[in-house]
Amino acid sequence: MSVQEDDEITAVSGFTREERRRDPSRVLALTDGVFAIIITLLVLDIHVPELSAHEKLGTAIADVRPSFISFVIAFIVAAMQWVGHRDLFTLIRYTDRGIIWLNLLTLFAVCLLPFGSALLSHYYEDPLALRMFGLILMGTSLTRTAIWAYATQKPSLIHEPLDRASIRSGLALSAFPVVVYLIAFAIAGVSPQASLAVYASGPVLYFITITLLHWLAPRGSAERQFT
Amino acid sequence: MSVQEDDEITAVSGFTREERRRDPSRVLALTDGVFAIIITLLVLDIHVPELSAHEKLGTAIADVRPSFISFVIAFIVAAMQWVGHRDLFTLIRYTDRGIIWLNLLTLFAVCLLPFGSALLSHYYEDPLALRMFGLILMGTSLTRTAIWAYATQKPSLIHEPLDRASIRSGLALSAFPVVVYLIAFAIAGVSPQASLAVYASGPVLYFITITLLHWLAPRGSAERQFT
Amino acid sequence: MSVQEDDEITAVSGFTREERRRDPSRVLALTDGVFAIIITLLVLDIHVPELSAHEKLGTAIADVRPSFISFVIAFIVAAMQWVGHRDLFTLIRYTDRGIIWLNLLTLFAVCLLPFGSALLSHYYEDPLALRMFGLILMGTSLTRTAIWAYATQKPSLIHEPLDRASIRSGLALSAFPVVVYLIAFAIAGVSPQASLAVYASGPVLYFITITLLHWLAPRGSAERQFT
Amino acid sequence: MSVQEDDEITAVSGFTREERRRDPSRVLALTDGVFAIIITLLVLDIHVPELSAHEKLGTAIADVRPSFISFVIAFIVAAMQWVGHRDLFTLIRYTDRGIIWLNLLTLFAVCLLPFGSALLSHYYEDPLALRMFGLILMGTSLTRTAIWAYATQKPSLIHEPLDRASIRSGLALSAFPVVVYLIAFAIAGVSPQASLAVYASGPVLYFITITLLHWLAPRGSAERQFT
Repeated sequence: MSVQEDDEITAVSGFTREERRRDPSRVLALTDGVFAIIITLLVLDIHVPELSAHEKLGTAIADVRPSFISFVIAFIVAAMQWVGHRDLFTLIRYTDRGIIWLNLLTLFAVCLLPFGSALLSHYYEDPLALRMFGLILMGTSLTRTAIWAYATQKPSLIHEPLDRASIRSGLALSAFPVVVYLIAFAIAGVSPQASLAVYASGPVLYFITITLLHWLAPRGSAERQFT
Repeated sequence: MSVQEDDEITAVSGFTREERRRDPSRVLALTDGVFAIIITLLVLDIHVPELSAHEKLGTAIADVRPSFISFVIAFIVAAMQWVGHRDLFTLIRYTDRGIIWLNLLTLFAVCLLPFGSALLSHYYEDPLALRMFGLILMGTSLTRTAIWAYATQKPSLIHEPLDRASIRSGLALSAFPVVVYLIAFAIAGVSPQASLAVYASGPVLYFITITLLHWLAPRGSAERQFT
Repeated sequence: MSVQEDDEITAVSGFTREERRRDPSRVLALTDGVFAIIITLLVLDIHVPELSAHEKLGTAIADVRPSFISFVIAFIVAAMQWVGHRDLFTLIRYTDRGIIWLNLLTLFAVCLLPFGSALLSHYYEDPLALRMFGLILMGTSLTRTAIWAYATQKPSLIHEPLDRASIRSGLALSAFPVVVYLIAFAIAGVSPQASLAVYASGPVLYFITITLLHWLAPRGSAERQFT
Repeated sequence: MSVQEDDEITAVSGFTREERRRDPSRVLALTDGVFAIIITLLVLDIHVPELSAHEKLGTAIADVRPSFISFVIAFIVAAMQWVGHRDLFTLIRYTDRGIIWLNLLTLFAVCLLPFGSALLSHYYEDPLALRMFGLILMGTSLTRTAIWAYATQKPSLIHEPLDRASIRSGLALSAFPVVVYLIAFAIAGVSPQASLAVYASGPVLYFITITLLHWLAPRGSAERQFT
């Protein structure tokens, strides 16, 4: 195919073959679909109670509580992961083989969030449940950190070249939850209560960090852009 | 990075870093995904009846009625919420941190609609079921009203600046269902039948209000655009 | 707001307020999401059999047959509806209140397809099951015919004005399945076997009709474009 | 309609009637939706164990293992199919009736992946389970191969004309898994262990082949573009 032919075709379709192959749109469509399902999945477990004789709805509905708490935990965690994923992919212009498979790894960990949340809400005093929840959370954060590290090393994949300080603070920001979860994981055997408290502090710490970055990071830096 | 370089990159990708970060497309993709699931979720509860000996399908299928009514209620309510969400986001050009988290709060309330509908269809004479249904509906409407209030205060987020009358009538329109649900919630203890009737009047009132606005609101005003 | 300001804003956002409000993209996103769920939903019912003592997988797996047939029926019917919906919306350029609510009505009927298919696969000799399946199918086809009739009456909603012959043959084409289903519905009480055969002939007739139209309809006419 | 009118309308909408009809965007939206559901579906089967008296979570959670393995198998297989589908559709510019129905056939086979994976994880020593898993995998690969064969025969459907060598190696690449699955299928009766090993080698072989192609295929050829 001559260069002229190629140009003509490109002009009609708007994208070169290379651009189509590296376009992230379907990666995002799949990811948003998976997150939409994960966010709603645990509502399926909140069943309408069936009343036995002389039982009141008020007492029967109390049984729904663990399922409801599972749903709330999974929703908050998945929402944070989705927001983080969206922030990450505003920096990424093109995908390649590495990005696609790392993103599928992230989705794998995200898919396990409902199970981890349900386990935690039922056995929140059991070290094993606390540790499995921690492993799943670390999986979601580590895989996302890996995408950040991978993409920032390949300038052709990102919209604008980032300066070293932004790359490092971005890495620190996405690796930071891993440290929090690691602490919760480590102390689960010693004190389940403390471990639970550390997990609960995760979203709070996240909001504080993001808010601080909004105010403190230099104008125009990538870490200021996190949601 | 020099200004020239930045311009060049922007020209290629079509959007500046700021625009990409504030682009609402993934927020809408997640939202549409969640609504698609919520709308279809309760169909899962309509099970094909298993016939016992000498039982006819005609009598057995009557057991499906509560599940079917749950599905119809959830479908109508979720459809109205989706239409309202779509109307709202035709005004919003950019998202920021506030919009994203308020939208996630809306999705949280929307996710509870199937549970609320199932509860109502099974215990429509129980004040507690009526109140919980009302709380969930208020949650969906209040969070959407909050997005409206938030976005209209930040001219940089919306497509065109709205005049004060449009902002106020938009607020009134999205807060109006909250008043209806609050009445139904308040009288649930006194008369469950009346409470149920008020809930049922919700969609009817909605259609009348929207139709009136189509005819009465000044040409080109935002409230004329509601579906 | 002056006209000049308005023009400037339009130029930046690419669409006027009116165009954004009437843009069908979110309607299609919701619709495709619902169809994706409906298509996969009945796979959930195909459970892996649990073997009792001395039972072989070969005999146990035969129990899966009705669930598998439900899935196949729902898949074929939903796929045909989706293809028809896609064809319809290649003609529609803008949505308005009528299109949106008629489309939600279509989705309502589509959501009932899994239940109808499951009912049919379990009680294919029962007139009631055959009639309910027929009602759901008629619902999906009638609502889609209504969108066609509505849109073709409003030239501002469609891409190009259609000539009368195209409008009429389009109406006939989407109303045609209704007639087939009506016959199957009517004879369900007399001969369930014949009714079932008429339903089964639906997809076959559809393929034949579409293929004939591809060859016979005048070049460039709308009905030639159906998939 | 005069040519001038037609041109004007085309200019406004940006696409001609023909282009809209052949646009693959909704085909991809449905496909990504189905894959998102298939990928997450088997997580639903990983239930939180209920402890009987004196039972520990550690022993109870072991019961989750087959469900977890089902999920992992379905995830890996569906992810590979999705990546292959995405690669294929970077070459396809337009859809026609054939592409749409072949793609629906692919989705049909993809929908059966969760069942096949669950069957395999529960009865991995049973020849019948191994054969059914193989049939489903062959279905997904054969239908995708059919799309490749169909599209490459119609130059109007693909972005750039492919040379014969690329068409042939693309066919070989998508037909290659079929051969692997056929071997696993054939030896399932003789040695279930060997059959299982061949299935397990599938993803490994896939990664090796793709990596080799990245290095060995001529620069700019289509098969270099596979993910």
